[in-house]
Amino acid sequence: MAPLKVAVYIYPSADILDFSGPAEIYSMQPSSGVPDFTITSFGHTSTVGAGTDATLTYVPSATFAAVSAELEQYDILVVPGAALETIEALVLSDEGREMGELLRRFVALAPRAEARTRVLQSVCTGALILGAAGVLAGRRATTHHMALGELERVSERAAVELGTQGGKSGIEVVRQRWVDAGTTEAGVRIVTAAGVTSGIDTSLWVVEQLLGKEKAAWIAEVAEFERRDGAWMA
Amino acid sequence: MAPLKVAVYIYPSADILDFSGPAEIYSMQPSSGVPDFTITSFGHTSTVGAGTDATLTYVPSATFAAVSAELEQYDILVVPGAALETIEALVLSDEGREMGELLRRFVALAPRAEARTRVLQSVCTGALILGAAGVLAGRRATTHHMALGELERVSERAAVELGTQGGKSGIEVVRQRWVDAGTTEAGVRIVTAAGVTSGIDTSLWVVEQLLGKEKAAWIAEVAEFERRDGAWMA
Repeated sequence: MAPLKVAVYIYPSADILDFSGPAEIYSMQPSSGVPDFTITSFGHTSTVGAGTDATLTYVPSATFAAVSAELEQYDILVVPGAALETIEALVLSDEGREMGELLRRFVALAPRAEARTRVLQSVCTGALILGAAGVLAGRRATTHHMALGELERVSERAAVELGTQGGKSGIEVVRQRWVDAGTTEAGVRIVTAAGVTSGIDTSLWVVEQLLGKEKAAWIAEVAEFERRDGAWMA
Repeated sequence: MAPLKVAVYIYPSADILDFSGPAEIYSMQPSSGVPDFTITSFGHTSTVGAGTDATLTYVPSATFAAVSAELEQYDILVVPGAALETIEALVLSDEGREMGELLRRFVALAPRAEARTRVLQSVCTGALILGAAGVLAGRRATTHHMALGELERVSERAAVELGTQGGKSGIEVVRQRWVDAGTTEAGVRIVTAAGVTSGIDTSLWVVEQLLGKEKAAWIAEVAEFERRDGAWMA
């Protein structure tokens, strides 16, 4: 099988482990053979300082415009979180609104024929970016355990703005390690993870769904990671 | 207390989670007040592609030369791992030999008076970079569970090269989540972690040693990480 294409969104002050965990899990593979996944990182600027006080600085491998223009090429889209003030400023900014629009387009794209699957995956407060874009309306979702109320709030605000279902989001926010909200009408699976390291568990679960239990177990062993399941209370 | 200064070594194909885990743990802090740690990433080039096929690209915040010139300013030095071929090529290269020399200087530096502590911390096969530099001679150490024999081999080679204790490393390689090998004569604590995510546990343990149980517990809660102890079989 050709590699599945993973796009990882990076923005200023994004939590580094939120996106490095999934990037690690999806990029880990035996040293020979066709890789299972390829990783494209993308952002609005040519370098991005992520983490608290720009803990680490990244060079995204693609521009926001390039990924946006070829959005249907990407099978998995990873959206990391950040501190609540950062998220709130982002979703109200021009860049954040562009991202919201990209997310609404992504969940309306049928899976590529070769891949037969498409997944939108948030980690930690990245769920709030999904919520603010309105793509969690009518679904179950989770986020960092300190941001559950905020996820509900931004989702309700989006419902009013977008005029969704009479201005009600209908989101059901739950506290879990991660939540599989099922697929959109087009066939995109939406998975929201709890805080930070939950993104590692979630990615291993996605690998298991797409490539089987054995592959996921092998990656967890190499990463020396003790997995938890989705029902685990975050 | 002034922040403790953490230097994180980044090199081509280094495992991204090996250094992103510790960078996340050390950079996580309440939104107000003096930070407990500041993070400096450094490498031999102005951009570094880390992970499998350059999963993510980084801009180190300092040059290798700058950190080397002010080495005594850094309280914690984090050395990530990579695939065994990458490590072997690195330690035999000019850059790797410079790093080996830096490591030998680091473990001979007494702690800064303000910090009262100095820690050399490897993650995963990063222990092999320490072993190849000879700084694990006569100590207990661990590494990724698939690289235990290799750690012994590079450490013996270093003992021959450096003429340590009659050409014998005297290293005791064990399989644990992490190993605290105690301090060098100068007072630098050497801590080696097992594979990948073990670096998160180890960093939380270092935080606990330096700042107390409460701080470490708070960070683990925010990161939604279930901690394991050093005796945990990796």
